[in-house]
Order: sequence, then C-alpha cells, then structure tokens
Amino acid sequence: MGNKAITERDKDFAQWYTDVVRAAKLCDYSSVKGCMVIEPNGYAIWEKMQEILDKKFKELGHVNVAMPVFIPENLLKKEGELVQGFAPEVAWVTQGGSKDLEERLAFRPTSETLFCDYYKDHISSYRDLPKLYNQWCNVVRWEKETRPFLRSREFWWQEGHTIHATEEEAKKETDQMMEVYRWFHHEILAIPSVTGVKTEKEKFAGAEYTLTNEALMYNGVALQSGTSHYFGQKFAKAYDVKFLNKDNKQEYVYQTSWGTTTRMIGGLIMVHSDDYGLVLPPRIAPKQVVIIPIGDDEKVDKLCNEYKDKLSRAGIDCYIDNTDKSPGFKFAEAEVNGIPVRIEVGARDLAENKITVARRDTREKLTTEADTDIVTYVKVLLDTIQRDMYDRAKERRDKLTFEAHNLEDMERILNTQPGFIHAMWCGDEACENRIKEIKGCKSRCIVEDGERIDDKCVCCGKEAKHHVIWGIQY
Amino acid sequence: MGNKAITERDKDFAQWYTDVVRAAKLCDYSSVKGCMVIEPNGYAIWEKMQEILDKKFKELGHVNVAMPVFIPENLLKKEGELVQGFAPEVAWVTQGGSKDLEERLAFRPTSETLFCDYYKDHISSYRDLPKLYNQWCNVVRWEKETRPFLRSREFWWQEGHTIHATEEEAKKETDQMMEVYRWFHHEILAIPSVTGVKTEKEKFAGAEYTLTNEALMYNGVALQSGTSHYFGQKFAKAYDVKFLNKDNKQEYVYQTSWGTTTRMIGGLIMVHSDDYGLVLPPRIAPKQVVIIPIGDDEKVDKLCNEYKDKLSRAGIDCYIDNTDKSPGFKFAEAEVNGIPVRIEVGARDLAENKITVARRDTREKLTTEADTDIVTYVKVLLDTIQRDMYDRAKERRDKLTFEAHNLEDMERILNTQPGFIHAMWCGDEACENRIKEIKGCKSRCIVEDGERIDDKCVCCGKEAKHHVIWGIQY
Repeated sequence: MGNKAITERDKDFAQWYTDVVRAAKLCDYSSVKGCMVIEPNGYAIWEKMQEILDKKFKELGHVNVAMPVFIPENLLKKEGELVQGFAPEVAWVTQGGSKDLEERLAFRPTSETLFCDYYKDHISSYRDLPKLYNQWCNVVRWEKETRPFLRSREFWWQEGHTIHATEEEAKKETDQMMEVYRWFHHEILAIPSVTGVKTEKEKFAGAEYTLTNEALMYNGVALQSGTSHYFGQKFAKAYDVKFLNKDNKQEYVYQTSWGTTTRMIGGLIMVHSDDYGLVLPPRIAPKQVVIIPIGDDEKVDKLCNEYKDKLSRAGIDCYIDNTDKSPGFKFAEAEVNGIPVRIEVGARDLAENKITVARRDTREKLTTEADTDIVTYVKVLLDTIQRDMYDRAKERRDKLTFEAHNLEDMERILNTQPGFIHAMWCGDEACENRIKEIKGCKSRCIVEDGERIDDKCVCCGKEAKHHVIWGIQY
Repeated sequence: MGNKAITERDKDFAQWYTDVVRAAKLCDYSSVKGCMVIEPNGYAIWEKMQEILDKKFKELGHVNVAMPVFIPENLLKKEGELVQGFAPEVAWVTQGGSKDLEERLAFRPTSETLFCDYYKDHISSYRDLPKLYNQWCNVVRWEKETRPFLRSREFWWQEGHTIHATEEEAKKETDQMMEVYRWFHHEILAIPSVTGVKTEKEKFAGAEYTLTNEALMYNGVALQSGTSHYFGQKFAKAYDVKFLNKDNKQEYVYQTSWGTTTRMIGGLIMVHSDDYGLVLPPRIAPKQVVIIPIGDDEKVDKLCNEYKDKLSRAGIDCYIDNTDKSPGFKFAEAEVNGIPVRIEVGARDLAENKITVARRDTREKLTTEADTDIVTYVKVLLDTIQRDMYDRAKERRDKLTFEAHNLEDMERILNTQPGFIHAMWCGDEACENRIKEIKGCKSRCIVEDGERIDDKCVCCGKEAKHHVIWGIQY
C-alpha cells in the first residue's frame, strides 16, 4: 500500500521523512554542502506561515526592518556568552572584492548584536520606547549533520527584537510572543505543542531565560519550534544601550528576542503526513481544494468552473487540475502534495446529481449532491479536517507522553518508545548530564506551575524542585 | 523654507537626498562598512513593492523558491563571462565552524549558476517546461563607493529565473517581464521611465541581450531600474541543462532572468521628493491617509474614528495620529514621512461642518464638508495625486530630454544640465568609450524602432545604426 516512492513510516521513519519531502517536492539538496533549495511546494508553505505570523506580529504593534547580513568580528565579540554559544557555528567572510578584509565578518547566526548596535544610536528617552522590530531573513550556522528543513547550514526565519523601558513590559513581551507561537502551532498547524522555560543548560546563549514551544513528532522525538528570550539588561550593558527614564535618569533598556524558522515545515510533515505523502492542515495549506474534472464534458467543465468561482470568492484557495494527465494520476498527485480536499466531477455522477469529495487526511471518499451549497459544504469539511487533525495529533502526543520516577523508568521508556517524559528534577546540571547519557535525552522545558508528581529528583533522588518534560530531540 | 533638517534640493542634491533619507527614517548606515539598515519606514515601502510585484509575477504563472546564499567557487566559474563580470565584486566565505573550507564559497552576487545547477537535475522532457521561478532575497556585491539604497554591498531584490523549450517563448518572457517593470514604474511609482536594449558593452555579463528600464532623477542623472536578460542557450551549455524536445531529440533549454532591487526606493525619492521631505505616490505609500484630531473633543474623536473605519473598509491604508504630540508637530511628521493625504479635524471647523484636507505633493490645503462622502472624496483625491505626480515627473523628464548631433552638443548638454540625451550611434564600442570620457556618460539603452534623428554617428560621424539614449548614471 501507500505511495510507491515512499518508504513505510513505521518501517523506517527517517527514510519515510526524506521520501515525503522529495515526493511532495518540498525541498532538495544542492551543490552547496548542508544548504537546501526550497522548492515551490515547500516555499508556498513558508509563504503562508509568513503571511499568518506577520499579520499577527503587526497586529501586536511590531514593524519589519532589514539589518545587515554581516557582523564584524569585534561587534560580535562584545557579549561574551553569545559568542561562546555561537562561535563554533559561524561562517566567516574574509575576502571581498579580490582583497583580504581587515576584519573578518560573520554571516549572522542571529542578530542581537546588530540590533543593539542600531538601538544605541536611535533611542535617548523613554518616549522612544518600546521599539518592536522583526525581520524575515536567512541565517547561517555551520552544522555538521544536516537534514532537510530540520537542520541546515542556511535556514530562513523571523527574528523579533524588542527593547522596553521596564523589566515588567519586556517580560510581558516575552510571554506574549511565546503565546503567539503556541497559538500558531495549535490553531494553524494543528500541532498540540507544550510550552515552558528552558533550563540554564539549554537556554539561549546570553539570555536571562528562554521560553520554548516544543512539538512531538509521530515517532516520539521532540522538535523545538519557536523560542522567546528575555535578556534583561545584559546586552544593553555590553552594547551601551541606555535611555533617559521617567525619573530623568540614565537606565539600560530591557530586551527580548523571539524566533521561528523553516524547520516548522519539517514539524508539519513529521506530525501529520502518512505513507501516501504530505498531509496539510487546511489553515496552512497553500492550496486547500483541488477540483478534478473526469472526462471531456461540457457540463462537467461548467460545474468545475462554477465551483472554483464560488470557492475562490469565499476566500478558499482552490484550483482546477485541467492538465492532460489521467484522473488517476491527478488523484495521486493531489494526494502526495497534501491538498486537503479533492472534488471529483464526472459526467456519470453528474447525471445522478452527485459528486465525489475525498478527504486527504483520512482518505475517505464522500458523496454529495452536485447542486449542494458548495461553499458551506467545503468550509464545514475544511474545519472538520483541521479539528480532526489536531485531535489525532493530540491523541498521539498523549499516547507518547510518559511519567518517570527514577532512572530505570527513564531508560525503559527511552529504549522502548521515546516521547515527552514528565519527571521531577532537583535543578542540578549534573542530573541533566546523567540523563543525557540515555540516548541523548534532554530537558525540553520546565512546566510553569507544573503539578508535583514526585518529591524526589528522577535522577539523584534528592529533593525535587521542578516539573520537567524530557525527551530526545531533532 | 522647507524642513530645517533638509538641505535645499536645488542647492546640494546629494546632501538633500541623504537628508531626506534620514529625516524620513528610511535607512541608516551600520557598523558594517557599505551595508545599510533598512528602517521601518523604508522597509514598509519595500514590502509594498514586493506585494504588488509578487502578485503580478504570480498572475503570470511564476512561483517562488529559495536557493542557497552560497555558490561554490567551481560552480560559479563554469560560465566564463559571468565570472569575469562579477569576480571583482564577490565576497568570499573561507571559514566555517572554526575551520578553513576546502573550497571558497561566494556570497551570491546573482543566482543564474545556482538555478542552472538545480534545473539540470529537475527537467528531462519538454513536458517539464517552462519553469518559471522567482526569489526574493539579499545579494552582496563588494562595491567601493556606496550610497543609501542606490549602491550598497548588500541589497535586497527579486530575481526571476526561467527556462523554456523554445527561443521564441524565452524571448517573449524577456519582453513580458520588462513590460511588468515598465508598468510598475509608470502605474505604481509614477515614474515615466524609458525602456530599450543595452549595448554589448553595457549588457549583463553572460547575456545574449539585456532589456533595461531607465528612470531619470530630478537632477537629470539616470537610474537603471530593472533589467530583463535573454541568455539563449549559453548557460544551458555551460551547465549542461538539456531536455528531450517534441521531436524526441536532446536540446539545451532557453533561459531568462530579470530583477529589480531596493534601489527603486532611492529612485522614488529622487524623482518625487522635495525640500519638506518624502513625497510618495499613493499607490506605493504604505500609509495613504493620516487623520489628525485637533484638540480634545468628543465629536472630533467620533468623526475621526468614523472616517478611519470607512476608509479602511474601502481598502485605503489610513491611521489616526492620536499621540500626545502637538498638531503642528504631527503635520510636520506626516509631511516629512510623505503621507499623501492629511485630514485635519478640529472642533471649530466642525461647528461649521468643515474639515481641512492637505495634499502632500502640492502642499495645498483644501476645505470640504465634514459630512461629505469621505471614501469617494479621498479616492478621487488619491487618484488625482497619483496622476499629477506622474504628469509632473514626465514634464520634468521631457524638459531634461535632449538631442545631440555631434560631440560638441553632447559636451554642452552634459556640462550644463545632464538628462536623457537622444543621439544616433554607429554601433562601435570605441565611440561609447569616447563619449564616456565626457563626465562618465554612458549609453542607457538602444531605442527599439527608434526614429532616425540623424544619419551620422554622434561621435565619429560615420553611418549611424542605432538611436541611443545616453546619460550619466548612479
């Protein structure tokens, strides 16, 4: 069964993933080691992600800018922790215009330093605050192991950067943007993620704390999907970003940053897709409905066009596949590409006032009247698919959510079927290191106000401080 | 008169330009030599440009992709002319992840090579053609002299790349995309550009021919604003991009590329703006209307909100400035930022059923009834402003359009007031070189089907072949 070009998901998950990416023409490797080409089908998903997130960012008062792609070495080095965190992954431009540069330029791995350098000359008083910036751009991190969408040397993302006059306001922003990522995953991507605080060991280099949104893939491996950082005044001090506060005193600004990347496309695939190819939740599908005429028939064509006009006017992304391929070929193509709804219109059915409608997520075939109110019918169906996809993903996530009370529990779970493992932790990094020895399992996040499921640390048995979700990650 | 922060345009054009860019907060220099920060006001214009062009590209069947930012040195070197053209301007990444790379990677100065490398593995038959791709991205060219928007080491652009089964179809694409750029300048940017073919000397490195869209700035200096290249099979041969044609024979594809950049923002400024700051044609203005309440009055606020709701619903980008600045300050800010229409609502006027409406382009103040049909009123006004701005720009361009019949003519014109200079040319590069000695004047384009305004070449006096427009360029 399944698509012949696609390895069975339950047989070899890694190969299945690569096969789906290729079969649905989402991205491909390139001659540049570790860098990918995002193909039209994949890029259309990224455009839809950008459209929805960008609208939300702007509603919350953010504006877009473009910072330079290069960071002079000295500028990058001003904040010690950040440099240490990113130094091993930086790509350096050392020659320009046939000459060696006097100072190496880093290809931005992230842009806190550039924003700080800009803020410094553009604010002077609390009246200039807050500054709520975002940019959509490419970044480079010199990864050793790469995987389409999940980890590549170049990737695309948005990075939000804000500065505020008070700690309270900056912390509120950090929370607010994490809530946007949670909302985006739950409501748009149909991915029931969990959110929380990163441990000291796992937080962003240079941040006071990092909030994270963690999704669970079909195979029980976790994917960090969106982080929001609170920097306090740390960078402001390193880069001298000061303002005159309401009390007429010089004060350092309070800073945040937050980002999501093209890896979310990888997450979408690994949560929802199947052995027949891509499955997309309707709200993120660039094309929601395909209408396929069967046979050469005037009435069929007329109805197809009528459907298309009505659906398009109602804001539904749809198209008629009137290429000269066979209907069977068209069905398979729509399926592998993850078009949520397929409407088949044939002369024989039409004579009985019938059409066939296929759901991509369940592969069910439904029959309805050709003269039905097509807009309402499709809208209800798309909503149903969206909800059902979320429910199934949640059911799977819950099935792969475990509780551990000691290291033996941890080992047994991770050796059988990884997933989100809830366990108490004493707060000591030594225990994180010990747990990492089991298949590289890491703390995903500390659950804020999490239930105390044990008094003892899952690792050392000493007094537990935090309720932590653990897991293996991509 | 004029804005105090802005040098008079007629006094020092270069300084005026920089002052407008800074006063309207469009972009700023950064710590990275030759690279700019595009600030929110500037980036909003670029977003609007992207939105309008992207929609048009898609209507014409193009799809967006993302190619890697790096080009391995060997891949870049495969097409000799392209390399020679770009080699002096390339920035090289030579280190990644703390190690020296085995092969240098160029930061893309343009992406023909990457697209060819991709095409090669993704087409096999004429059924796979055409491929109509575009990408929005940053590129780097190691320029020595830089200027905000006009010339910088990093800039943002769209690059369209297409391949076709026939020469005819590829040439049609080259023409079509040049027409899109012409349309965009005339209808959206209100810039009466001229289009034509580049001479051999001025064409894109590696192209068979280049079409160009040339705009004339207020000071008579030309700005190349969009080019469309026909490559024939040149790159296809260098990169081995073949397909099985309808006659079942292997054939090389026919290729095009076309691009426009953030420099168009510079063009917009230098064509339309004045001593009071930025002036934007309504169709490209991110914010078309500002509503300014004067004084603290319930009725005023109510009407402002009513206007905003009505205008927004009609698809007009408008906002109410209800910050705590003084009305005079708000007027000046709207003016320097180039908001096309300013509506002032005050209690005293309102008592007489009046409001004041100010046009940014002419700085006229109009009075109308407060209970007018505001949507129709504003729509008509925006259309009028758009048309008037085009007409004024065209009048100016025509005034700065000259005819030369010999070198003395050329010298006189260029020494007095540069502009578009129409003159006949024999087709010999030696004459282009001779003319370039006069203040760096270059051929802008060959006018297709241009009137024969002389029988002799403007330079050598031999038989003329082409009607050429000449000029000094940015």
